[in-house]
Amino acid sequence: MHKCMLAALRLNGFPCKRPENVTADDFFSSALALPGNTGNPVGSAVTAANVEKLPGLNTMGVSMSRVDYAPWGVNPPHTHPRATEIIYVLEGSLDVGFVTTAGKLFARTVCKGELFVFPRGLLHYQKNNGDAPAVAISAFNSQLPGTQSLALALFAASPPVPTDVLARALQIDGSLVEAIKSKFPPM
Amino acid sequence: MHKCMLAALRLNGFPCKRPENVTADDFFSSALALPGNTGNPVGSAVTAANVEKLPGLNTMGVSMSRVDYAPWGVNPPHTHPRATEIIYVLEGSLDVGFVTTAGKLFARTVCKGELFVFPRGLLHYQKNNGDAPAVAISAFNSQLPGTQSLALALFAASPPVPTDVLARALQIDGSLVEAIKSKFPPM
Amino acid sequence: MHKCMLAALRLNGFPCKRPENVTADDFFSSALALPGNTGNPVGSAVTAANVEKLPGLNTMGVSMSRVDYAPWGVNPPHTHPRATEIIYVLEGSLDVGFVTTAGKLFARTVCKGELFVFPRGLLHYQKNNGDAPAVAISAFNSQLPGTQSLALALFAASPPVPTDVLARALQIDGSLVEAIKSKFPPM
Amino acid sequence: MHKCMLAALRLNGFPCKRPENVTADDFFSSALALPGNTGNPVGSAVTAANVEKLPGLNTMGVSMSRVDYAPWGVNPPHTHPRATEIIYVLEGSLDVGFVTTAGKLFARTVCKGELFVFPRGLLHYQKNNGDAPAVAISAFNSQLPGTQSLALALFAASPPVPTDVLARALQIDGSLVEAIKSKFPPM
Amino acid sequence: MHKCMLAALRLNGFPCKRPENVTADDFFSSALALPGNTGNPVGSAVTAANVEKLPGLNTMGVSMSRVDYAPWGVNPPHTHPRATEIIYVLEGSLDVGFVTTAGKLFARTVCKGELFVFPRGLLHYQKNNGDAPAVAISAFNSQLPGTQSLALALFAASPPVPTDVLARALQIDGSLVEAIKSKFPPM
Amino acid sequence: MHKCMLAALRLNGFPCKRPENVTADDFFSSALALPGNTGNPVGSAVTAANVEKLPGLNTMGVSMSRVDYAPWGVNPPHTHPRATEIIYVLEGSLDVGFVTTAGKLFARTVCKGELFVFPRGLLHYQKNNGDAPAVAISAFNSQLPGTQSLALALFAASPPVPTDVLARALQIDGSLVEAIKSKFPPM
Repeated sequence: MHKCMLAALRLNGFPCKRPENVTADDFFSSALALPGNTGNPVGSAVTAANVEKLPGLNTMGVSMSRVDYAPWGVNPPHTHPRATEIIYVLEGSLDVGFVTTAGKLFARTVCKGELFVFPRGLLHYQKNNGDAPAVAISAFNSQLPGTQSLALALFAASPPVPTDVLARALQIDGSLVEAIKSKFPPM
Repeated sequence: MHKCMLAALRLNGFPCKRPENVTADDFFSSALALPGNTGNPVGSAVTAANVEKLPGLNTMGVSMSRVDYAPWGVNPPHTHPRATEIIYVLEGSLDVGFVTTAGKLFARTVCKGELFVFPRGLLHYQKNNGDAPAVAISAFNSQLPGTQSLALALFAASPPVPTDVLARALQIDGSLVEAIKSKFPPM
Repeated sequence: MHKCMLAALRLNGFPCKRPENVTADDFFSSALALPGNTGNPVGSAVTAANVEKLPGLNTMGVSMSRVDYAPWGVNPPHTHPRATEIIYVLEGSLDVGFVTTAGKLFARTVCKGELFVFPRGLLHYQKNNGDAPAVAISAFNSQLPGTQSLALALFAASPPVPTDVLARALQIDGSLVEAIKSKFPPM
Repeated sequence: MHKCMLAALRLNGFPCKRPENVTADDFFSSALALPGNTGNPVGSAVTAANVEKLPGLNTMGVSMSRVDYAPWGVNPPHTHPRATEIIYVLEGSLDVGFVTTAGKLFARTVCKGELFVFPRGLLHYQKNNGDAPAVAISAFNSQLPGTQSLALALFAASPPVPTDVLARALQIDGSLVEAIKSKFPPM
Repeated sequence: MHKCMLAALRLNGFPCKRPENVTADDFFSSALALPGNTGNPVGSAVTAANVEKLPGLNTMGVSMSRVDYAPWGVNPPHTHPRATEIIYVLEGSLDVGFVTTAGKLFARTVCKGELFVFPRGLLHYQKNNGDAPAVAISAFNSQLPGTQSLALALFAASPPVPTDVLARALQIDGSLVEAIKSKFPPM
Repeated sequence: MHKCMLAALRLNGFPCKRPENVTADDFFSSALALPGNTGNPVGSAVTAANVEKLPGLNTMGVSMSRVDYAPWGVNPPHTHPRATEIIYVLEGSLDVGFVTTAGKLFARTVCKGELFVFPRGLLHYQKNNGDAPAVAISAFNSQLPGTQSLALALFAASPPVPTDVLARALQIDGSLVEAIKSKFPPM
């Protein structure tokens, strides 16, 4: 019996069932069986099976996502504050990379059937390097890894990160920061 | 820079590279791209990409395996002492299940594109429920989850678990225990 | 003040008292003072003092059990999914062993006053190797280590593990699997 | 005796001293006593006292930094992959903020003697909101929290993050990405 | 979003807000801006900003305290059962020390701008070694480190630690133990 | 195979054997079978089976001690910085207690066969409350819990804790501190 089954109300802030009400379906998800809609500006879609979607993951320390990529689609630079990710390519091939805290990029092409690791908390991305759709499965060592898309965090936070902070950080004019911000609907 | 890059010699007992010698290949594996050989008595094969095979996983807290199943093949009851497993079906469909410490079996069919969770340390199995090969990818929240096949641990350990212990446990005659033991080459 | 004292309702799914209601009795148990009843097919009895029995163990990360053994009695092969065990022999002498994930059995005799360690999650057993009762105390680094008796998990789960899965795993006929299953009342 | 004192060679990849060679100086640092040089484009300087600088922090799970800010200086948006940060203002006042994974900015002014918390792994920044120098002390629950400046990770990694990936992510032209990249010397 | 935001009721025994009710003030404290009152027998005062005072620290794994010292004031020997401490001197200079489990004292003077580390759970103290007030900031890798003042625990617990236990421990007469006890109001 | 078996050199600072050299004896100890010598001023003796004595405990997270008590002997107030303790009385009966960080004493009598829990890091003691020898077994959730006897840490550290610090803490004259110090040989 896993720990959550013993909890009458909630554990880690998520609902727990009484043991007599748990079924095999609590450990099952079909959410990753269907492609996500990649008809968006970045050409990719992430479908998550984490504890918010699959309550049986509570206390389990794992979760999964499916990523669909349109031809040349990009899963833009982002971090997972609470997990290392291991990605396995189901279809197509991807150009992937992560940047260390020392500013070094580790990047390569990962083809169907191959895998790559993105260490906890580090900026990383994937790009479909072909003209057919690509698909990958990502596993995480957290039931709720969290995702922080850096373009959105920098330019589309609500309320916004102050323009002068971004201008200083990026060494660009405030007007340009504003122009980039205007591309994003606020989150 | 991840922790292992900083270690001159070894960390957790595994070799570490100096940062200047680390490359993207240290975070990459193609080991799961090809089917394992299922021509064996149980009709399944597990191919692991853990820290023993992919040193870049050291300190990462994740690993992956590919499981191939012949038609009606079985990945026999086993435990992973150090990890929860999340399994994703790539081809075919599987009958899967795990047994809780209260002796309850949670079981169901998992089809292509679907996933199921096996909680840390609990006995579980998968069976290909079709007459075509099946394939699954498993992710773990440990760089070295360990696998203890219970048939092998009980009947093929080296030296062997005493026959009278097994006879008592299984409520069967010692001669029958010996007969089962004789089916397995010692590990 | 330990963490649970601060919790108004529950912590980790177990009840917590308000600090003003906690007494020394919450950290005390006499449950292990009396022998368990070993009049059963395996000739052993486990009495647990874990967080289910002693709520003061909540958040403490420890628990204890007493094991009584009839002459030649066996504590049959089992695992603890969430804890390492350290066993101390109070009376008599035991033949003990555990099997590693590499299939190696580490076994020896442990006499009164001696101790042995069973690593987290690995299959292990004890057998009274004398014709007088034996007693041991086991300590765990978990407030709820869990116990999975492998004979029961394999042959007496409810609903049962499919016969063909067990037949494949054990390399025996389904009829023999059924015969063994029939020895156990379902859990 | 702390764990590292017991290690003859290295622990977690860092050198350990034998107990007889440890002195009080191993637990001491004066590195944060002097202001850092804020004469740089962002107008801030971080001086770290982590395990790389103070080996006695090995296995301790804490570290500290001093941040100096020129008037209106900015500690640009960054993350710490391995730690939560708690910042205490020594001189002046700061505008600080962090962005959640849901894209929400939590921001406010923090004056001399006040503190603010930046949760593990989330993008955050500080800006001196006055025309005198400001100083802060930051504490972390890791001996090596790591810092990933997002402007540098995105635009100055070595080798560089591909321009088309950044153009897609930021919804801007590749030529503009190149223009921003040109502002930064590669790391 | 940090974990506590997701919890409807409580997490770790502390209240959690619903995400829509969280504000920047939940991550902010001004409690350490003002000096504590050192007009007491030991000549020091500790002001804490831990999860009991700042609920936004829940699940964060950090906290802070301010310590004020009258001239020659002492923060008497104490332990923190759940955290390592890193202390930074804001004003004046301190004589500090901790005692290892091997009975070795590591001590030195720490001046303004310098820092010192007290390992988790070990007895330590600070003394203002000057005739002006001194101030320090301490950071902990726990949201609730706990403090056990050893003079109070030994001589002022409620109900009291038995006199004969203390007499044996300190190798002094019971009457002397009673005399020391009489100096302290019960806690 | 447990983690340490995989380490060629050392893990956590302790030696590791290569797997082929590990035997069952590495998980076994007879050190607690014989009584300790209680002919000392406190009338008690602690015999430890921790990772310093039993290398096979490395990475296991458990250890054990035997405590012998002369009639009316005392195991004087102490803390374990790294572990919760669970004590089981083998012979005789003990008066035991621990003091919380709020200064509350939880105390009671624990007889043969009964157990009591001392939370991590809190001051606790045991006293034999009878005129026959008593014996207890203690288990810890750490392979090296550490022990800090508070009388020794306060009055017998080497070099000594300054007398004025202790005088302030205990509200007694320095001459009395010196008198107590003189009772203890330096550690």
